[in-house]
Amino acid sequence: MMKKIVSVLKHCRSFLITSHIGPDGDSISSQIALALLLEKLGKRKKVIIINEHTVPQIYRFLPHVNRVSAPYSLLPAPSSFEIAIVLDCSNLERTGKISSLISTPRSPLPTPLIINIDHHLDNSFFGDFNWVDKKASSVSEQIFSLSKILGLPLNKKLATLLYTGIITDTGSFQYHLSPTTHKIIATLISKGVVPEEITKNLYQNLPFASLKLFGLALATLKENKVPTAFLRKQEVGKDGKLCWMKVTREMYQETKSFIEDTEPFIDYLRQIKDVKVLFILKESSENKTKASFRSIGKFDVQKLAKKFGGGGHRNASGATLNEPIDQAEKTILKAIKLWMGY
Amino acid sequence: MMKKIVSVLKHCRSFLITSHIGPDGDSISSQIALALLLEKLGKRKKVIIINEHTVPQIYRFLPHVNRVSAPYSLLPAPSSFEIAIVLDCSNLERTGKISSLISTPRSPLPTPLIINIDHHLDNSFFGDFNWVDKKASSVSEQIFSLSKILGLPLNKKLATLLYTGIITDTGSFQYHLSPTTHKIIATLISKGVVPEEITKNLYQNLPFASLKLFGLALATLKENKVPTAFLRKQEVGKDGKLCWMKVTREMYQETKSFIEDTEPFIDYLRQIKDVKVLFILKESSENKTKASFRSIGKFDVQKLAKKFGGGGHRNASGATLNEPIDQAEKTILKAIKLWMGY
Repeated sequence: MMKKIVSVLKHCRSFLITSHIGPDGDSISSQIALALLLEKLGKRKKVIIINEHTVPQIYRFLPHVNRVSAPYSLLPAPSSFEIAIVLDCSNLERTGKISSLISTPRSPLPTPLIINIDHHLDNSFFGDFNWVDKKASSVSEQIFSLSKILGLPLNKKLATLLYTGIITDTGSFQYHLSPTTHKIIATLISKGVVPEEITKNLYQNLPFASLKLFGLALATLKENKVPTAFLRKQEVGKDGKLCWMKVTREMYQETKSFIEDTEPFIDYLRQIKDVKVLFILKESSENKTKASFRSIGKFDVQKLAKKFGGGGHRNASGATLNEPIDQAEKTILKAIKLWMGY
Repeated sequence: MMKKIVSVLKHCRSFLITSHIGPDGDSISSQIALALLLEKLGKRKKVIIINEHTVPQIYRFLPHVNRVSAPYSLLPAPSSFEIAIVLDCSNLERTGKISSLISTPRSPLPTPLIINIDHHLDNSFFGDFNWVDKKASSVSEQIFSLSKILGLPLNKKLATLLYTGIITDTGSFQYHLSPTTHKIIATLISKGVVPEEITKNLYQNLPFASLKLFGLALATLKENKVPTAFLRKQEVGKDGKLCWMKVTREMYQETKSFIEDTEPFIDYLRQIKDVKVLFILKESSENKTKASFRSIGKFDVQKLAKKFGGGGHRNASGATLNEPIDQAEKTILKAIKLWMGY
């Protein structure tokens, strides 16, 4: 399959590169890196990167980040490119509105071929050409392999992009790791990556207000034991906790912070000993509450989010409830108790 | 020098291994790993690991951790071993009370030879044999090199120890990194290390009460701008902040937490954008306040701690003030303002 993909990349002339909604470090970095590699192959000015959502502030330090365009109005006509390359998506729906552009069976215009490059376990092989490497830490790791196959040497900018994709998708080298990943990282550092520069941008860039907001939210942090019978059924040991916390509009006002400032909170809570399932509720308006669910191990919080019309993955999902925050808390706790058989 | 050290290790029969007060992941892991290697060389039962302080709870998952003894009363007589190997210490004083045991010029007993294995920039070459590798991420990385030189293959336990030393001394691979470090990590994973197991123990083991305590402490978090003139003098850009926070005895009581639970707080605060100098005050009793100082970059907080009879390093130091916590806050802020020329 790799041979076919390489051949397609070499012979086609116009490319649309896209990735999932809510773009992350890996999706953004791998898209830009791939575009730079294609340009090294001589595809200059015929490579478009487009996502439904804009690049979050935290990734704006990346080289050539302005290449990633988002406003939907800027979308080119489907006929204007031959190949759509979809990165880091289990299925085409993950690209959001972009999916309609690259998969329009009823369109009178020719629709592009699709190359699917991904590392998720549940990839649906939606492409005309599929390169799914479940052992890869990240798509950036796959793009690294691609650069080797294409015989294109990496410079500091490319290495910085790939390093960022790998560090963010492994939680700063804490999971999804293989010897291969670390060997790649060694190569990237030897190409000029300065790890301290990247980690400063990613992990030492928190607004002061975000920590003040976290302080207020922590006052609402609660925990419940997960029933032993349920833990036994899931085969995850004998201790388990459910933890959750609320962020209200008053808290934003008091600390002069914004909903984006809550971004790191869920990762802090993941550090709690024995936590298996956790959620954060964020009040958007009087009758609207956003819920973010996370789980550790085999617990499937996607099913939980689905009950409220949301979605996501087994270990990370979300939903919006049309209820005041305190009512939403009750609704979710009731659903969790039903799920776990309290 | 390496050749001499290898020769000494091979020919001596009795070893005392030690490291610094306030032991960390690297000092503990490298000590145990070195002991295991010496035993592979046939030095069974003649290798003692002893530190002034006990192993913190968080590192108790390490293989053979019970080999590390701490109570001072258990100290052997200096004459009972030929060689003292001091790991991860810039100078002999860093070993605390152990230093008197291995450096007693007025003792009638023969004092042991000292091997100094370290990676700190300011190492004072206090040993009879000094192996100071300033490029190494950690002493664990040096012990890895030693195992190669000695031709001793690593098993999963040894690899787990060295991996833990490296991950903790690089802040989960965020600083002190070279291609070599990542190549070593790749080898360690191929020897059976499961990164997820280690990071679960190190980073997903926080007591619930610790986060509740952090919430209360964050309510006291404050910031001050560092004067531009001072930043210019230190050549560290144009933006800089001083941040600090207090942990009172009432907070421990309210959240049923302990002083150990404050351990991760300072690392969270290091994430604040533009923070250059930070400190946390912890109330020990009505008239006693412990201060932990941290800095990013060239700011020397060791000098600051010295003013209050404390010590440490350029980027991490501490002191105990015999003052109530609010008075200690005023005293320290005054000293910082003097230092920075407000």
